[in-house]
Amino acid sequence: MTSAVPPVEDGAASAEVKAVFDDIRKTRDTDYIGIFWRVLANDPASLRRTWEGVKQVMAPGALDPLVKEMIYLAISISNGCDYCSHSHGAAAKAKGMTREMFAELMAIVAMANQTNKLADGYRVPVDEKFQNLF
Amino acid sequence: MTSAVPPVEDGAASAEVKAVFDDIRKTRDTDYIGIFWRVLANDPASLRRTWEGVKQVMAPGALDPLVKEMIYLAISISNGCDYCSHSHGAAAKAKGMTREMFAELMAIVAMANQTNKLADGYRVPVDEKFQNLF
Amino acid sequence: MTSAVPPVEDGAASAEVKAVFDDIRKTRDTDYIGIFWRVLANDPASLRRTWEGVKQVMAPGALDPLVKEMIYLAISISNGCDYCSHSHGAAAKAKGMTREMFAELMAIVAMANQTNKLADGYRVPVDEKFQNLF
Amino acid sequence: MTSAVPPVEDGAASAEVKAVFDDIRKTRDTDYIGIFWRVLANDPASLRRTWEGVKQVMAPGALDPLVKEMIYLAISISNGCDYCSHSHGAAAKAKGMTREMFAELMAIVAMANQTNKLADGYRVPVDEKFQNLF
Amino acid sequence: MTSAVPPVEDGAASAEVKAVFDDIRKTRDTDYIGIFWRVLANDPASLRRTWEGVKQVMAPGALDPLVKEMIYLAISISNGCDYCSHSHGAAAKAKGMTREMFAELMAIVAMANQTNKLADGYRVPVDEKFQNLF
Amino acid sequence: MTSAVPPVEDGAASAEVKAVFDDIRKTRDTDYIGIFWRVLANDPASLRRTWEGVKQVMAPGALDPLVKEMIYLAISISNGCDYCSHSHGAAAKAKGMTREMFAELMAIVAMANQTNKLADGYRVPVDEKFQNLF
Repeated sequence: MTSAVPPVEDGAASAEVKAVFDDIRKTRDTDYIGIFWRVLANDPASLRRTWEGVKQVMAPGALDPLVKEMIYLAISISNGCDYCSHSHGAAAKAKGMTREMFAELMAIVAMANQTNKLADGYRVPVDEKFQNLF
Repeated sequence: MTSAVPPVEDGAASAEVKAVFDDIRKTRDTDYIGIFWRVLANDPASLRRTWEGVKQVMAPGALDPLVKEMIYLAISISNGCDYCSHSHGAAAKAKGMTREMFAELMAIVAMANQTNKLADGYRVPVDEKFQNLF
Repeated sequence: MTSAVPPVEDGAASAEVKAVFDDIRKTRDTDYIGIFWRVLANDPASLRRTWEGVKQVMAPGALDPLVKEMIYLAISISNGCDYCSHSHGAAAKAKGMTREMFAELMAIVAMANQTNKLADGYRVPVDEKFQNLF
Repeated sequence: MTSAVPPVEDGAASAEVKAVFDDIRKTRDTDYIGIFWRVLANDPASLRRTWEGVKQVMAPGALDPLVKEMIYLAISISNGCDYCSHSHGAAAKAKGMTREMFAELMAIVAMANQTNKLADGYRVPVDEKFQNLF
Repeated sequence: MTSAVPPVEDGAASAEVKAVFDDIRKTRDTDYIGIFWRVLANDPASLRRTWEGVKQVMAPGALDPLVKEMIYLAISISNGCDYCSHSHGAAAKAKGMTREMFAELMAIVAMANQTNKLADGYRVPVDEKFQNLF
Repeated sequence: MTSAVPPVEDGAASAEVKAVFDDIRKTRDTDYIGIFWRVLANDPASLRRTWEGVKQVMAPGALDPLVKEMIYLAISISNGCDYCSHSHGAAAKAKGMTREMFAELMAIVAMANQTNKLADGYRVPVDEKFQNLF
């Protein structure tokens, strides 16, 4: 598979792109830059906006990083995004996701997709007691 | 909104349906049966199969119940299932999901949907190092 | 709910729109024109193209009309299209879909959505023997 | 493509997995076990639950097995599940789906996806007469 | 419909939220703040990140603002997002989208959804000459 | 990848198929027939209906051909249709889409998918002023 625009190698990175690559390396404590970021680097504004968004959203908060990564992975799988399922699968494993956790995540993704369709198809009205969340 | 088939009230439940309703009540320690189950009860085999599946998948395991519920909620939101977003939102809150956790979940669902499309649209090839999961 | 453009009533229909409405009435042996067609009538070319497409695709062929209608309904439910689930649900019932058939259709839609995600998420490679269809 | 977890070969199957494989072989009157089931076998509870669900849902009922298989195939295609489109395409063909039937199925899937978006985008309100199904 | 968290009114807005609201008002030259932004304001970091992203992406560039708005609207319709179809429909109209343009946009969204499924379902391999984009 | 039915080569085309192929060649001023059309040619009625629909929808109108092509491309990417993203990417480039335009299109597709989920997940009610479109 060939990407729609070629990945930006380090030697060809502008100062703006290089700054983002450096921040990825520092934040993730690795020298490796995923192809996703290198392809996105053809549009430096999108690279910066997307990286800063992901960095902010995935930082530790009320949810711990592994839980966050597993939610990201679950959505990527449910959406059928092959690249993201691979990259976030690897990230979740690096953060501690075991085979057992992955099997449970998969079972939930599958079950949710099943009951989502049952609720839609049977046109189930929302229960009065579920109307308000917060 | 009217459901595609009318909900089965307790008085009209067959023995097979009643057994499932009783198990829902016991398992969830509540007297309340959601409209989803009452509508599904028109097809007792589907009611039993779906309930036993949900019960098995959502039982404590390698992942704790709140994490499981939040993954279920995240998928339901991403799929645009109104009923399931309401019912699993309520369930997650009952298991301890705070406003802050919900805001973080929402941010991840949204960000994943964004980067899923970037990876797809830019046709990013999977990195060699992400090829194998387990 | 208000449609994005107002439905075209019979009195306001141009000759081109009237011809399509007449063909719908004749083909379906009913005087009733669904709101979908009346709204689409604001763009007569789309009205004609869509109606002639639906008429051609849903005509008896290798598959009988009820099977065709149930496949249409199944897709509409799986896609979460509320209007189409209602209109094709009514059409399938008019062609003979019983409660039992509907329950089986729903169970298949739900199960397919479940196993679709399992196959995607587990990245199952296609079996050699399933490679070719015809 | 490498599956997320390796397929379970017969020699490595636990008693629980072997029992499901045997039931697949007996039910489908074939010695062949699809890779989907072998991958899912890494999580024996999911294997059993999913197999028993599929077996129950796809058994002859109010709808005949070929119609059921074609609905399953239609959903898998509409969802873009490559594996399932291949496996259920093969299954439908084995049950009697001809090229002509497949072409008609494809035309319906495509047309439904088209009109689903027209109804959504034009915000067509549901006709009073389509409100109730059963 | 009740939002999952209550909208933040001007009087209850923190300094961080107020700054974003002010920027929305100034950028769009209107006093009106959509409910979307008021609900998102419960999570000020998400409000700021999302607003700044939208502002950056929708600014005039190689594509003119109306074209950008129509692409945004087309995606929102195709995804079945009711709120976004309404808000971006209104925005596109304000930027000059006529009824004729909207009808053409709708026809393309519908046609694309149709041919997307035909290409997927018939498993059409990508033509050699379409492999590379840039 | 092997298509579900084999592509129809010129020598094997029936008169009906040949007429459509000729019209594609004339309309697009090229001798090349995409594999999509050759595969669809196994069902001549679908070939004709789909080609005439695409031809009609993509003809110059209130929107110019490049804008139409970019909307088609945006939907194809958002739907994850690999074939259509390639063929409509090539078509858009041939009509004048630059790298900068493509990057902006990608950013909008991604942002729309993000905010679509935020609006759905936060259950944002439609603003009174956005209710009516035309």
